Amino acid sequence: MAMRMSSLFLRTLRENPADAEVPSHQLLVRAGYIRRVSPGIYTWLPLGLKVLRKVEAVVREEMDAIGAQELLFPALLPRGPYEATGRWAEYGENIFRLTDRRGDDYLLGPTHEEMFTLAVKDLFSSYKDLPLAIYQIQTKYRDEARPRAGILRGREFVMKDSYSFDIDEAGLDRSYQLHRDAYVRIFDRLGFEYVIVQAMAGAMGGSKSEEFLATADNGEDTYVRCPECGYAANVEAVRVPVPDAVDASGTPAAHVEDTPDTPTIETLVAHLESAFPRADGRAWSAADTLKNVVVMLVHPDGTREPLAIGLPGDREVDEKRLGAQVEPARVEPFEEKDFAAHPTLAKGYIGPGVLGAEKASGIRYLLDPRVVEGTAWVTGADEHGHHVVDLVAGRDFTGDGTVEAAEVRPGDACPSCGHALETARGIEMGHVFQLGTKYAEALDLRVLDENGKLRTVVMGSYGVGVSRAVACVAESNHDELGLVWPRELAPADVHVVATGKDDAVFTVGEELTRELEAAGVEVLFDDRRQASPGVKFKDAELIGVPTLVVVGRGLAQGSVEVRDRRSGERREVATGDAVAAVLAEVGRS
Amino acid sequence: MAMRMSSLFLRTLRENPADAEVPSHQLLVRAGYIRRVSPGIYTWLPLGLKVLRKVEAVVREEMDAIGAQELLFPALLPRGPYEATGRWAEYGENIFRLTDRRGDDYLLGPTHEEMFTLAVKDLFSSYKDLPLAIYQIQTKYRDEARPRAGILRGREFVMKDSYSFDIDEAGLDRSYQLHRDAYVRIFDRLGFEYVIVQAMAGAMGGSKSEEFLATADNGEDTYVRCPECGYAANVEAVRVPVPDAVDASGTPAAHVEDTPDTPTIETLVAHLESAFPRADGRAWSAADTLKNVVVMLVHPDGTREPLAIGLPGDREVDEKRLGAQVEPARVEPFEEKDFAAHPTLAKGYIGPGVLGAEKASGIRYLLDPRVVEGTAWVTGADEHGHHVVDLVAGRDFTGDGTVEAAEVRPGDACPSCGHALETARGIEMGHVFQLGTKYAEALDLRVLDENGKLRTVVMGSYGVGVSRAVACVAESNHDELGLVWPRELAPADVHVVATGKDDAVFTVGEELTRELEAAGVEVLFDDRRQASPGVKFKDAELIGVPTLVVVGRGLAQGSVEVRDRRSGERREVATGDAVAAVLAEVGRS
Repeated sequence: MAMRMSSLFLRTLRENPADAEVPSHQLLVRAGYIRRVSPGIYTWLPLGLKVLRKVEAVVREEMDAIGAQELLFPALLPRGPYEATGRWAEYGENIFRLTDRRGDDYLLGPTHEEMFTLAVKDLFSSYKDLPLAIYQIQTKYRDEARPRAGILRGREFVMKDSYSFDIDEAGLDRSYQLHRDAYVRIFDRLGFEYVIVQAMAGAMGGSKSEEFLATADNGEDTYVRCPECGYAANVEAVRVPVPDAVDASGTPAAHVEDTPDTPTIETLVAHLESAFPRADGRAWSAADTLKNVVVMLVHPDGTREPLAIGLPGDREVDEKRLGAQVEPARVEPFEEKDFAAHPTLAKGYIGPGVLGAEKASGIRYLLDPRVVEGTAWVTGADEHGHHVVDLVAGRDFTGDGTVEAAEVRPGDACPSCGHALETARGIEMGHVFQLGTKYAEALDLRVLDENGKLRTVVMGSYGVGVSRAVACVAESNHDELGLVWPRELAPADVHVVATGKDDAVFTVGEELTRELEAAGVEVLFDDRRQASPGVKFKDAELIGVPTLVVVGRGLAQGSVEVRDRRSGERREVATGDAVAAVLAEVGRS
Repeated sequence: MAMRMSSLFLRTLRENPADAEVPSHQLLVRAGYIRRVSPGIYTWLPLGLKVLRKVEAVVREEMDAIGAQELLFPALLPRGPYEATGRWAEYGENIFRLTDRRGDDYLLGPTHEEMFTLAVKDLFSSYKDLPLAIYQIQTKYRDEARPRAGILRGREFVMKDSYSFDIDEAGLDRSYQLHRDAYVRIFDRLGFEYVIVQAMAGAMGGSKSEEFLATADNGEDTYVRCPECGYAANVEAVRVPVPDAVDASGTPAAHVEDTPDTPTIETLVAHLESAFPRADGRAWSAADTLKNVVVMLVHPDGTREPLAIGLPGDREVDEKRLGAQVEPARVEPFEEKDFAAHPTLAKGYIGPGVLGAEKASGIRYLLDPRVVEGTAWVTGADEHGHHVVDLVAGRDFTGDGTVEAAEVRPGDACPSCGHALETARGIEMGHVFQLGTKYAEALDLRVLDENGKLRTVVMGSYGVGVSRAVACVAESNHDELGLVWPRELAPADVHVVATGKDDAVFTVGEELTRELEAAGVEVLFDDRRQASPGVKFKDAELIGVPTLVVVGRGLAQGSVEVRDRRSGERREVATGDAVAAVLAEVGRS
């Protein structure tokens, strides 16, 4: 049934809604695709639901094409399995929790690793049943701290999540590649620019992890790319190229110096420059100093553990990078009361002298990978107003390991080829991830192998943000007048606009609508008698159906106008040829 | 893509699951359509999801055909609108409630009256925008006290709910009829027996309310039907035919009698028979007595109000009927402590003497409609061991009104024609309901009428239990071997079974599968090499695809067998004619 503007459940708005900052949010609300119910929770109006279903159809087709089987888990899930994997605690405030009338705990599923794993355990028992790929397209829930940008980051949203199950790592590699290829086809069809970046690998088993990021200046995710070799990674996954060890035989013995009132890197560098000018005339820089930052890790079981990070003074700790390294622990600031509990820490003058599990503070101490053996540093002397100079890594101090927690900057060396990296922003639209045996082990998913022995199943995890994709497509497909949908995702194939007061335009518009529908074309027909041509065109531009047919003034001369929304191109077509012309436009001729 | 038994995410079970009592639950689990996650919460496995989607498609087609527009509201809903209509309190323990990280209250939507009403208020403002019908097919939640029978009464389930919006009652009548007609088409297509019964009308505005009940001996809903005139109603909606007033001029004055140890109707009748035999020889019966039952109403705001019901002693109070009358209040038992708080009530001997808002107890007193003016009763004298005889309604006592709370029994008179009613059981599958202005008033949904005056919109509410329909279809379409799906809802059009060890059967089965798929037929192909023919046939019978093609022994003679699952009919078809034969069977030739 054609949609008719005279009765369509739609009101377009001329002004942007007050809470909408990004174009997709503004336009999807203004053009009547979505309406906000609550923070991060939206209603899909008829036009929006059509686009959502078309995105789902693209995803479903490509999943089915690689032999993945669709099923549907509940959204309301019992606590038990999430307790078994530790995620009931790990999720913290990020999930919605509730209690039923019997007092049993439930959550609203944010992802379904546990359910997929248990379903396979329930049904399958032999290597002969593998490989298996199963998926669902489902409404998911996360209690985001900052829901934003309409459906880009919602609290109730639609995701496609699939999982692969294999008997071994080689099988996982194959399943992973199948999904990765399917994702390339999906995102090619959805019609926005994207980049595939390396992402953090899992803590257990498996190693590959890649994200599909839609490139967007207002995206929440920062990634780096190398214009030389094509390397791309999200900031969490960037591995700093480790410099070669330095010959420190010419470096003097470490010496403690008076550095009064230098609790910051800036004050320290200024003091060094005035009090200890270098013999060779090189200026002191922040990069010559070793900054030691202490944070508090909160583990899922609630225990708190201080952690110190030593990194070059010209770099800040990147919270996201650190967070990804210490997962599932959470990072919190090290507060005054924490300093009070650790009296060996001289705030502003902390040095390797007290750090490290074996040293005075007992605090675990991880070093930036740039702090290689033989490098000399100016760093805190663990005493207020004092720093130590010519402290050499490996000779004078060591850490308990390394950590990738320092910020990544444009111009940093590409880990793959050494060329200067660029940074850019994007929106995470998909993730392919070798889970390995994490969930299979936690939930005891084992099958008999060809020798009759029980073997833990190896899993892959693959997600697409389906409702987010609607926003993302809108973000990449609009102009100053409104939305411009790719043909495959548009709420209708053609928008027939009858303009003027003459009955004939409505009669011909109606006939055209009927003939197009009979030919399998989805039509949005603007049959409103009262609205002016200006209002109708503004609405049509805002709504963004790719092809417009205007039945108006030309009708007297026996023609209608066919417009292309994207290019703005217009041409007159004889009324009798209109159906054929539209079929050609929409690719159905 | 054809489903292949060798890789399908399916395991059939030979035994019924322990918790499954009704056939649909047993068979849907055994045949691998659904799996239980938690009480009343199920996973849809691949075969089940296909059936669910086909039921959805039937419902969607018929909704679209009457011009209803599909949209999709969230399931996670803010408390505010439900507070405005009073339903936040009314739902009591029957909904899932939760609090987000900011401390705001939410519920999981059990129905969406509030959301639909607010959406229309948000977008529309004039009588010119009406009539409007909008609907969604969505996952809903109810914290049922007793989830049962698999997906027949779940806590997470799929419903189609639609609402109509009209400027006046005449419009509502038209919208109601459109929906009712669409429901007839939907339930005719779904392939189970059903009956349309009168149901309780709303408290405000509107008057028509009908339920579509699937007839089922194990159904939860009891309804009555008249074999004479076709009247049908659920028990809540039955209206007792009110007898004519009786001339009581010959009835003696009421007299109190000693009736020691007669706290029950049985003991009272026995005592009357022995101590006060009637002059005309008629035996005393329970129907001559007036039983006064006191219950406690709990209103949504938590206040508790005692209510007394006077009804003939041969009838019990029907909890469902009483509950429907006093909604949104809830009925609880009148406990010992409540008796203690009302000392005028002589338990077992309560009579009209103290009942009634103006009398000693101050308790509201409602009478069964059979207690008409002039009828004489034996009832409690409000004193232990005493009853009053010849107490005449209207002459000696009155109530504060009437109430339809007495049980309905087979043989009761049809309210429409007087013939004896029958009772039967069914499962509520659909409900069409004239809501009137209840929600529009609570949420202030008004539009300008043709005179420029604001007018409250008149609404209708229409629901179909979509996931429940899957169970209901299974309940009506199975035999001792397994499921027998109606063609339109089957998970596949045809089940191709290759039997034997010969490679040729698998090659031909594969070719046949490919050709059928190319012709648009959905195929389930049993390509398992290990399984015996017996196992394959048992699985096929359990799964219940309507047409089977067996590629087996006959192949040597150049034929395959085409079986009809429902009739059991089998015929040999030349291999070359197999595709055409199947196309004819599935109605695609």
